Amino acid sequence: MDLKKYLKEKKEMVDKALEGYLPMEEEDFDIITKAMRYSLFAGGKRVRPILCIAGAEAVGGMKGQILPVACALELIHTYSLIHDDLPALDNDDYRRGVPTSHKVFGEAIAILAGDALLTEAFKLMSHPDVRKGINSERLLEVIHIVSYAAGYHGMVRGQVADLLSEDKEVHTDTVEYIHMHKTGALITASVLSGGILGGGSETEIASLKSYGQKVGLAFQIADDLLDVEGQSHIMGKEAGSDIKSKKATYVAVIGLNESREMARHFISLALDAISSFDHRADPLRAIAHYIIERKY
Amino acid sequence: MDLKKYLKEKKEMVDKALEGYLPMEEEDFDIITKAMRYSLFAGGKRVRPILCIAGAEAVGGMKGQILPVACALELIHTYSLIHDDLPALDNDDYRRGVPTSHKVFGEAIAILAGDALLTEAFKLMSHPDVRKGINSERLLEVIHIVSYAAGYHGMVRGQVADLLSEDKEVHTDTVEYIHMHKTGALITASVLSGGILGGGSETEIASLKSYGQKVGLAFQIADDLLDVEGQSHIMGKEAGSDIKSKKATYVAVIGLNESREMARHFISLALDAISSFDHRADPLRAIAHYIIERKY
Repeated sequence: MDLKKYLKEKKEMVDKALEGYLPMEEEDFDIITKAMRYSLFAGGKRVRPILCIAGAEAVGGMKGQILPVACALELIHTYSLIHDDLPALDNDDYRRGVPTSHKVFGEAIAILAGDALLTEAFKLMSHPDVRKGINSERLLEVIHIVSYAAGYHGMVRGQVADLLSEDKEVHTDTVEYIHMHKTGALITASVLSGGILGGGSETEIASLKSYGQKVGLAFQIADDLLDVEGQSHIMGKEAGSDIKSKKATYVAVIGLNESREMARHFISLALDAISSFDHRADPLRAIAHYIIERKY
Repeated sequence: MDLKKYLKEKKEMVDKALEGYLPMEEEDFDIITKAMRYSLFAGGKRVRPILCIAGAEAVGGMKGQILPVACALELIHTYSLIHDDLPALDNDDYRRGVPTSHKVFGEAIAILAGDALLTEAFKLMSHPDVRKGINSERLLEVIHIVSYAAGYHGMVRGQVADLLSEDKEVHTDTVEYIHMHKTGALITASVLSGGILGGGSETEIASLKSYGQKVGLAFQIADDLLDVEGQSHIMGKEAGSDIKSKKATYVAVIGLNESREMARHFISLALDAISSFDHRADPLRAIAHYIIERKY
């Protein structure tokens, strides 16, 4: 299959939907709208929405119905980037080649824009229009899975572990813990949500969950590798910045070659998890390969 | 009715439920659990959960089923306090007589604890156990109303307007705008959620919404009045601190006497809104009276 075309089409579909879901800059006090839109349209690849759509397609579901949920995942991802970049956390001035939210709008608005994006995600998933096309039980299940992945048990925990590990000697299991929570949880939830909304069986959903977990880890390792190998103008941040700040990454703990090997290992496990799926899971397969091959 | 007894009973019920819903401090990286619990159990009066319960009772609904939603409202309220107190926002060192989250745990953990509480609220509302006892459609409606009130269209907008109004001449309509969004939206959503989960009719729910809007405004005016009239040891912050920092409050704009009159006016409108309800709305009536009579 032509993955490049697939990713482009799906990204455009997601971008168009996001454009429609987000509030416009026409009301009073619209600095918050500007800030929400600034980070949301700052060049994201829409990995999570696309995984959600591909997850639904893998079990044969309609993709139209799941766009609001797919977009909600991107809102949550964007919120997490804005808050992670704050001076009190990672203190990053640039992200994807442009100044981070707090550098443009100030810390107060950056915090509130993150809060608003996170809350907007749940508003979007529970919107009356979404409820028309989707079984309510399944939708509630998805809201539960996404909030579980984004909150205390997932992303937030990963970020806390990451903070506490800075400037410390860490072992592989800590790095895996951080990646599984900080990045892996929402990526897994993305594929899972798609599978649930697409009407997948219990077995199919379990397989998609396993695929998501492995792909999530591989994705983060690949990101760590790109941080070291990449050029600053491609990554949009100074290459090697994670190493310099002594971040807990696979590369820092087990080195470049072993990290590459480990990413390939996880991708192979991800492919195994969906080996019983038919051709409709080809996008998921192609995405898995792409993760370790991408150059940006 | 004995409101004091009612409030005490309901507060205990909410506190007990919250205790059970929140993660325990037994896992790794439990500084985030500590921070979440610290702010959640820092002496809140549980106004929003109690309004939710009273809203359900007013339409004759069971109160047991709605506890998770009632508690979720308190999680959202607590998150908003933690983020509002941050140095980048109101920069408050004390809240309810104890140091604020960022003073105890640092800014990074305070930001993440707020994020976690907000996300946990949606996890709680969509939990499988909750779904067993409540119609899924109604539950999704409540999640939508709560996220609408907490996010871009509600609390966040109010906070942004408040920030932008600091140190500026403001008029009554701006103060009302801020209060309606920052405090009023979630208070209204609390009463409304109770009414919806309690199985209220469309007319009843519209009346509860109107009650919530008026009570929300009166509640905030009463808070402003207490800030000026109150003693620091009762309010847990320096009395008059809002005036000193030139916050947009009714008291600052129209003065003490007119503010008192306006609070009474809104309470009278709130009582009118539920005048057709029978004795089961007595708690809502008593709470409305209490708001302008309370001394802390």
